[in-house]
Amino acid sequence: MEPTFQRILYGGDYNPNQWSREIWTEDMRMFQDARINSATINVFSWAKIQPSEETYDFSELDDIVDMLSRENYDIVLATSTAALPAWMVKRYPEVARTDYEGVRHKFGGRHNACPNSPVFQKFARNLAGKLAERYGSNKHVACWHISNEYGGECYCEHCTSAFRVWLRKKYKTIEALNKAWNMEFWGHLVYDWDEIVLPNALSDGIGYNKTAFAGLSIDYCRFNSDSLLANFTMERDAIREFDKDTPITTNLMGTYKALDYFKWAKEMDIVSWDNYPSYNTPWSSTAMRHDLMRGLKGAPFMLMEQTPSQQNWQRYNSLKRPGQMRAQSYQTVAHGADTIQFFQLRRSVGGCEKFHGAVIAHAGIEDTRVFREVKQLGQELEKLGTMTLGSENKAEVGIVFDWDNYWALEYTSGPSEDITYVNTIHQYYKYFYEKNIAVDMVPVDADFSNYKVIVAPVLYMVKQGMKEALEKYVADGGVLVTTYMSGIVDESDNVHLGGYPGPLRKLAGVWVEEIDALAPEQKNKAVFADGTKTECGLVCDLMHLEGAECIAKYGADFYAGMPAVTKNTFGNGAVYYIGTRLDTEGLNKIMNSIVEKALVAPVIDEPTELEVVVRTSKDAEFYFIMNFKDGEYPVPACFTGETDVLSEKKIESGETMKKYEVRIVRRAISK
Amino acid sequence: MEPTFQRILYGGDYNPNQWSREIWTEDMRMFQDARINSATINVFSWAKIQPSEETYDFSELDDIVDMLSRENYDIVLATSTAALPAWMVKRYPEVARTDYEGVRHKFGGRHNACPNSPVFQKFARNLAGKLAERYGSNKHVACWHISNEYGGECYCEHCTSAFRVWLRKKYKTIEALNKAWNMEFWGHLVYDWDEIVLPNALSDGIGYNKTAFAGLSIDYCRFNSDSLLANFTMERDAIREFDKDTPITTNLMGTYKALDYFKWAKEMDIVSWDNYPSYNTPWSSTAMRHDLMRGLKGAPFMLMEQTPSQQNWQRYNSLKRPGQMRAQSYQTVAHGADTIQFFQLRRSVGGCEKFHGAVIAHAGIEDTRVFREVKQLGQELEKLGTMTLGSENKAEVGIVFDWDNYWALEYTSGPSEDITYVNTIHQYYKYFYEKNIAVDMVPVDADFSNYKVIVAPVLYMVKQGMKEALEKYVADGGVLVTTYMSGIVDESDNVHLGGYPGPLRKLAGVWVEEIDALAPEQKNKAVFADGTKTECGLVCDLMHLEGAECIAKYGADFYAGMPAVTKNTFGNGAVYYIGTRLDTEGLNKIMNSIVEKALVAPVIDEPTELEVVVRTSKDAEFYFIMNFKDGEYPVPACFTGETDVLSEKKIESGETMKKYEVRIVRRAISK
Amino acid sequence: MEPTFQRILYGGDYNPNQWSREIWTEDMRMFQDARINSATINVFSWAKIQPSEETYDFSELDDIVDMLSRENYDIVLATSTAALPAWMVKRYPEVARTDYEGVRHKFGGRHNACPNSPVFQKFARNLAGKLAERYGSNKHVACWHISNEYGGECYCEHCTSAFRVWLRKKYKTIEALNKAWNMEFWGHLVYDWDEIVLPNALSDGIGYNKTAFAGLSIDYCRFNSDSLLANFTMERDAIREFDKDTPITTNLMGTYKALDYFKWAKEMDIVSWDNYPSYNTPWSSTAMRHDLMRGLKGAPFMLMEQTPSQQNWQRYNSLKRPGQMRAQSYQTVAHGADTIQFFQLRRSVGGCEKFHGAVIAHAGIEDTRVFREVKQLGQELEKLGTMTLGSENKAEVGIVFDWDNYWALEYTSGPSEDITYVNTIHQYYKYFYEKNIAVDMVPVDADFSNYKVIVAPVLYMVKQGMKEALEKYVADGGVLVTTYMSGIVDESDNVHLGGYPGPLRKLAGVWVEEIDALAPEQKNKAVFADGTKTECGLVCDLMHLEGAECIAKYGADFYAGMPAVTKNTFGNGAVYYIGTRLDTEGLNKIMNSIVEKALVAPVIDEPTELEVVVRTSKDAEFYFIMNFKDGEYPVPACFTGETDVLSEKKIESGETMKKYEVRIVRRAISK
Repeated sequence: MEPTFQRILYGGDYNPNQWSREIWTEDMRMFQDARINSATINVFSWAKIQPSEETYDFSELDDIVDMLSRENYDIVLATSTAALPAWMVKRYPEVARTDYEGVRHKFGGRHNACPNSPVFQKFARNLAGKLAERYGSNKHVACWHISNEYGGECYCEHCTSAFRVWLRKKYKTIEALNKAWNMEFWGHLVYDWDEIVLPNALSDGIGYNKTAFAGLSIDYCRFNSDSLLANFTMERDAIREFDKDTPITTNLMGTYKALDYFKWAKEMDIVSWDNYPSYNTPWSSTAMRHDLMRGLKGAPFMLMEQTPSQQNWQRYNSLKRPGQMRAQSYQTVAHGADTIQFFQLRRSVGGCEKFHGAVIAHAGIEDTRVFREVKQLGQELEKLGTMTLGSENKAEVGIVFDWDNYWALEYTSGPSEDITYVNTIHQYYKYFYEKNIAVDMVPVDADFSNYKVIVAPVLYMVKQGMKEALEKYVADGGVLVTTYMSGIVDESDNVHLGGYPGPLRKLAGVWVEEIDALAPEQKNKAVFADGTKTECGLVCDLMHLEGAECIAKYGADFYAGMPAVTKNTFGNGAVYYIGTRLDTEGLNKIMNSIVEKALVAPVIDEPTELEVVVRTSKDAEFYFIMNFKDGEYPVPACFTGETDVLSEKKIESGETMKKYEVRIVRRAISK
Repeated sequence: MEPTFQRILYGGDYNPNQWSREIWTEDMRMFQDARINSATINVFSWAKIQPSEETYDFSELDDIVDMLSRENYDIVLATSTAALPAWMVKRYPEVARTDYEGVRHKFGGRHNACPNSPVFQKFARNLAGKLAERYGSNKHVACWHISNEYGGECYCEHCTSAFRVWLRKKYKTIEALNKAWNMEFWGHLVYDWDEIVLPNALSDGIGYNKTAFAGLSIDYCRFNSDSLLANFTMERDAIREFDKDTPITTNLMGTYKALDYFKWAKEMDIVSWDNYPSYNTPWSSTAMRHDLMRGLKGAPFMLMEQTPSQQNWQRYNSLKRPGQMRAQSYQTVAHGADTIQFFQLRRSVGGCEKFHGAVIAHAGIEDTRVFREVKQLGQELEKLGTMTLGSENKAEVGIVFDWDNYWALEYTSGPSEDITYVNTIHQYYKYFYEKNIAVDMVPVDADFSNYKVIVAPVLYMVKQGMKEALEKYVADGGVLVTTYMSGIVDESDNVHLGGYPGPLRKLAGVWVEEIDALAPEQKNKAVFADGTKTECGLVCDLMHLEGAECIAKYGADFYAGMPAVTKNTFGNGAVYYIGTRLDTEGLNKIMNSIVEKALVAPVIDEPTELEVVVRTSKDAEFYFIMNFKDGEYPVPACFTGETDVLSEKKIESGETMKKYEVRIVRRAISK
Repeated sequence: MEPTFQRILYGGDYNPNQWSREIWTEDMRMFQDARINSATINVFSWAKIQPSEETYDFSELDDIVDMLSRENYDIVLATSTAALPAWMVKRYPEVARTDYEGVRHKFGGRHNACPNSPVFQKFARNLAGKLAERYGSNKHVACWHISNEYGGECYCEHCTSAFRVWLRKKYKTIEALNKAWNMEFWGHLVYDWDEIVLPNALSDGIGYNKTAFAGLSIDYCRFNSDSLLANFTMERDAIREFDKDTPITTNLMGTYKALDYFKWAKEMDIVSWDNYPSYNTPWSSTAMRHDLMRGLKGAPFMLMEQTPSQQNWQRYNSLKRPGQMRAQSYQTVAHGADTIQFFQLRRSVGGCEKFHGAVIAHAGIEDTRVFREVKQLGQELEKLGTMTLGSENKAEVGIVFDWDNYWALEYTSGPSEDITYVNTIHQYYKYFYEKNIAVDMVPVDADFSNYKVIVAPVLYMVKQGMKEALEKYVADGGVLVTTYMSGIVDESDNVHLGGYPGPLRKLAGVWVEEIDALAPEQKNKAVFADGTKTECGLVCDLMHLEGAECIAKYGADFYAGMPAVTKNTFGNGAVYYIGTRLDTEGLNKIMNSIVEKALVAPVIDEPTELEVVVRTSKDAEFYFIMNFKDGEYPVPACFTGETDVLSEKKIESGETMKKYEVRIVRRAISK
């Protein structure tokens, strides 16, 4: 794949506007020492560069751009529209958001603009255009970064009106809308578009996370995601008037719920994202998010933000241990990143992020552990050069991730409040992660034929066309794994009548008659043909075989003996239906058998406690070998004798790796 | 007692308006198969039958009523006023409620009308009248069901004004109000009625459940209950203009806090209620609620809603186990129900209750476990016929339940936040339940002379006349059991001065000098004359004997040796005062002795693990024998040789019953 | 020190306005019996004494004052402005507060006036003046008590405007403000004063306890404290127009967060406070609050409120055990109180405090345990007479307490959410308490030279001049103990650049490179030179010695071996820097060594489980010897043969004290 950048961007958020000119000079010196070659600037400077409705003042920004250009930085130029200037909120209170309780906010915070405010839109578009006009031709501007971490919701009158327009466009008639949302329920029939109000605490919201009408609330999620996306494309198009080719991005946030990133990615030139694991986040969870971000466009991505060491906004902001940031960075590259950027380059003197780690500490010197680690990584990345840029991650397994499902599953009232989307997806991802089997995170409309196995846990909402796509995939020899809470509703959250799992019933060869919910203190057993018994819980589908065979059955309760896990042969392929939340042992048992039969290969054949990931360029494979475990483990024997690109040393037989150690092995592809 | 209905109504909520006509036909066929003979319709159809301020459209409802009439259903016809039409909220925003935080809501949800909105009142009254005019003469309309699950509060300006009118009517002068609420406290004196505001988060509310002025807040509770009741009687009276005799009800909700159901029941022709236990609700708790619902009018009631299997809005919506719904239904009948109705007959396709269990599942077929169980029960009820209809539940024990006390006790600030009303009542109810001793739940103004024992736990508020009533009851030979936190305040929540338990002091023969509060980690002991020591806690009254004798004393702390439980002989009767929360062992010990001395008889003499309840008609007793325990237990020997009405088999010696098994034995009363 | 009062005021809040005249007579009789000599009146009577905007009615108050004067009471006369009259809120809604969510409240509660409402200010000033004019010359009025328990916040438009004025006065230019709050962060630059809004849920507040801009939020805390203080001084000055010398106070609340009591105390003639420990509050914590209240002016204080037995608003309002109230009262006197006053003298009949303990119970008689204990104490205090009045508490140790630090530390986002101010201060206070080492709680601008040891835990904010003051103190031979999270920010919450602990770096001789945060389940070890290992956690400073010596080092993790506790010799003194939260054993080990080297003497040399505190008058020392432990312990041998002032008995050798026993020994000072 053609790389977006000419080198690995290594740098991050840089806010010289918060500092004196003496500090700028010091920064340049220190960054050079650390091999930093890129800076993300102008992220939160709207009030500075537009001090009033009528005035723009780019003088300081000019100086910053000049300095970075002189120093040959790749500039990631942000548009500053993620936080409103105070003067704008004062003069036009409508630009501020109205919250879930229906209260309009005053000036404060960030991510605070109503996406449907015409005033905000006008000012944001103008600013993006002016920036592009001024800096678009600067060859050092390597990337445009629109706004910042888009997110949040607004419930104001502008949004209400815009929602009605959005709905009219989608449904055409009020009758169609009434049907889609099943508005006969609780007598909610509407006769006019302006009877519709946003679903919040004052209307159909139930608490913060539930709703009386999931169809309505999911449409609001889609609308809100679209509204913010329209803000993005509006600025993008304003930039494109002046700058035809510099890539344009905005930084995403992994599994952030509110935005349908698959839809967003279509409008972005390159995906970028911010990776902030907590002290106790499993490494598999971080890996999954990387794969999801890569999956959005099926292409390498930018790591726009990570902290060199410490967070500030988590409950317990542990230091990254020595080597941890380096290992985390290589994991990021391994999973598809072509940049490594930090938030931020110099720790702030004040404001709520002043304890957020940075390349330069408050001490202001190079002689810190963190700076040394940043510099070491900078030197290594410089050595790595361009060889990994644009290289691909290939996978035989696809895991379906879908924001509509995310929203719908979690709005569902019943059977159990403890069913959550990302956790469930992660349970399946983790299986592959621990086997070093490469995974693509794919959308519901992916080309499944690229994969030997498609895993679609809690595929609660099955939208139009998906039944056919999955049936074709399996008939053609694919293997599909799905679970409880699948095939239940259509895209409007109305149940697919005729028995669960609805459109998947024929494919899975089972009929789920009932879904039992188990409280946390309740457990059942999954009993396998070989007598193995493993624990299961959360929900238990009570199902009947309709062509499928039983792989495991329940071991307790009145449905003991009924199938818990089934396999159905369908055309040339097979469908596994897992009707309950299995424990690790049970899930491994089933997945091992699936992987084996589907001939899915791990990255290396050898079992290992290490994470091993491969990226593939036109002429070489890059094996990233990383230890994220507490113990010390041998480098897999298959790499013995090969050279670690980082140390330039040969890997010896029996050589071991401690926690956070990394090796990269390049294998040429013989053509 | 003359039964309200000619047969056991068996059916439930039916919403054909949510479905196509093909489905209606299918419904009729399947319902007939299940022996369903009744349907509750038009519960949430206001927007459908009145599409605008000026228009009514009964065409669909006509078709539904016609179909059901043709099929000889007993129609329970709802008035649809429990959810506002969207057009009404748009045109008259005042019809929506204002919440505890003082914010007026927009369109959404249900139970959403301000009870004091003149606009709402006008439209609701009109609608009820029009329905009665149209359908009142239909002989298949067996019952009117006004609105649905009345509840909630409103804090709008209409309610504020109405509250002032309500207060003026109650107190006549502002001086009387100031005295009643003790408004000298915190300088709250008011000089004019319009200085009074509703007690919410913006005024005298403290958090959600506490208040600075309990007198004010309790009056607001009474006012709010009255306001909603006025909505009910308004619709009732509108119906009565056209339909003079069809019984009129609305569905209540057990121990729901906000409405004084004893006051409501006086306005209802028959009580109906919705029974939704959770997966871990004790069966004694459900039984207590049935007895409370029966006690409201001292008459059989309707079970208006239960789920055939699964709930959707609880945290963990477990399936009802095989036989559980049947056993639960018979428990309901045993405690006084003359109908068994489900929510609902066909599972919804969308909306937040789409996972709520129903007779017909999303699969749409009869061949489901749930449908089969519903059909079995239908067949059995058909066989049971009319024999139990109108029969009575007789009890020698009355437990006092009082909404004023419920409100007052839980508004109390001190001594312990952990004192709650329903839990405390249930602790005492459970004792009798486990002994199969029949209990009536009675109001504070009941005719106590009907009972050998009156139990009045936490009789915190003793209203005018109650002292005299209880003294007469005991003097005449009755036995009264009361507890800590009794006799403290008058009906305005002002303390009865002169020493606790105030008006009960002479009667109980004790003076409670102090009330200690124990944190959950703290315990004391109740030490009995025979040396038995049992645990107690929560609160400990420090009391002095004034004529009473000590039954148990404290075993620890500085009040070790002071009485914890006392008995006072008063006239021909006795009063037991239990000054602390005893554990089960201690409470059983005392209650056993009370029951023995009072010659209170259980339903059958034989001890058993089974629940046994008896209903009595003019000519027979019906013994309901039910197993709600996990173990298998013998049918009590006294029933050996008698015939189980359901199976028509003779009960054999040593015959056992598994969990959820039921026997019904009919014993003719020889005249 | 010259005592403020001529006798120990013994009495408390008295609300005869809530009662009939017959009760007044009864009160006088009973109070005399209990040796009560003082009453706090008119606390919540605004609506009574000013029934409308135009009318005042002092007739009842005249009668109360006359009665108390006749009975020779020391009257503490409150101004009644702590709760608005209903009529005022109705006529001038602006007088009510606007809450953190931006909603203006209606009539209700107390402490409900917007401090910046001109209407409130006018009425409050007038009332205070009228009271002073009427009662100021009454010699029985011993003290003015303005308002009551000042506290809370307001976020209305009046406060917004006043805040802008306050800021303009402080910062002079908008540029200075932008710099102080680091407004370049998140693009918050303001160009005009009226762009500034109050930091609440609608602007820069993050949840209830965090903020995006600590500088802004701390300034708001200062402003709010100042606003309420201006209410106080306004009333004070109105009183002074008519009464030149009666002492004026208002009752404070220990470590209440919202008000900078050191600043307040400067405006008060005498400090008074309300002491409400919970059933499980450590006695050291209560002692610390007494010392803080004494420290505010470095002078004896009034105990304005405590309950004779029971609270009502805590979760579990346990009774005070026999002797507990007496022991608590003597602890209060021991730590500097010259009055013992209760809330309240007669238990209320209604309102949310009706279960709050009082001298006279609802029973209304003397023959109660509580009354007897109050009477016993009254007799003893009468015997004690004036001898302790005005006597001083001398200390060689000062612990720094500072509201700016309190606010700043707890607004901090990072490194750990579990760092709280008062708990941390208390950990250090407790060490001295358990050793019977007298402590003064001192402000940041105290004259440190009065102390051998200054302990300044979490001295997060180091304001201008403090560096110099601390350096001088240590250079001159003082010993300073400080901890992690010290020296981080300046008075605007901007980081002192150049390496932590900023201005204390040279003094402490260490550089803290990083601050690790440990989750609750994570621990490290502090390893001492002698091999002792004790547990530590919460945060771990990673520090480098810059002249200091290592006292203890970490025992685990990648920073094992780095210093955890250090000592630096600086001039003639020494600085101890404790870089982590030590457990009790570790902290004791270090503090023992510090105390020993600094020659800090406990009150008595002999170790004891008893609390021993000394107050010193011109001619005598009063030793208060109190047992707050469950066990029975000997009176320290050094008191053998001396006379207990209370019992007038000689203390015998081997004499022991049970829980809550007290001895007072007077030792004449030979001149």
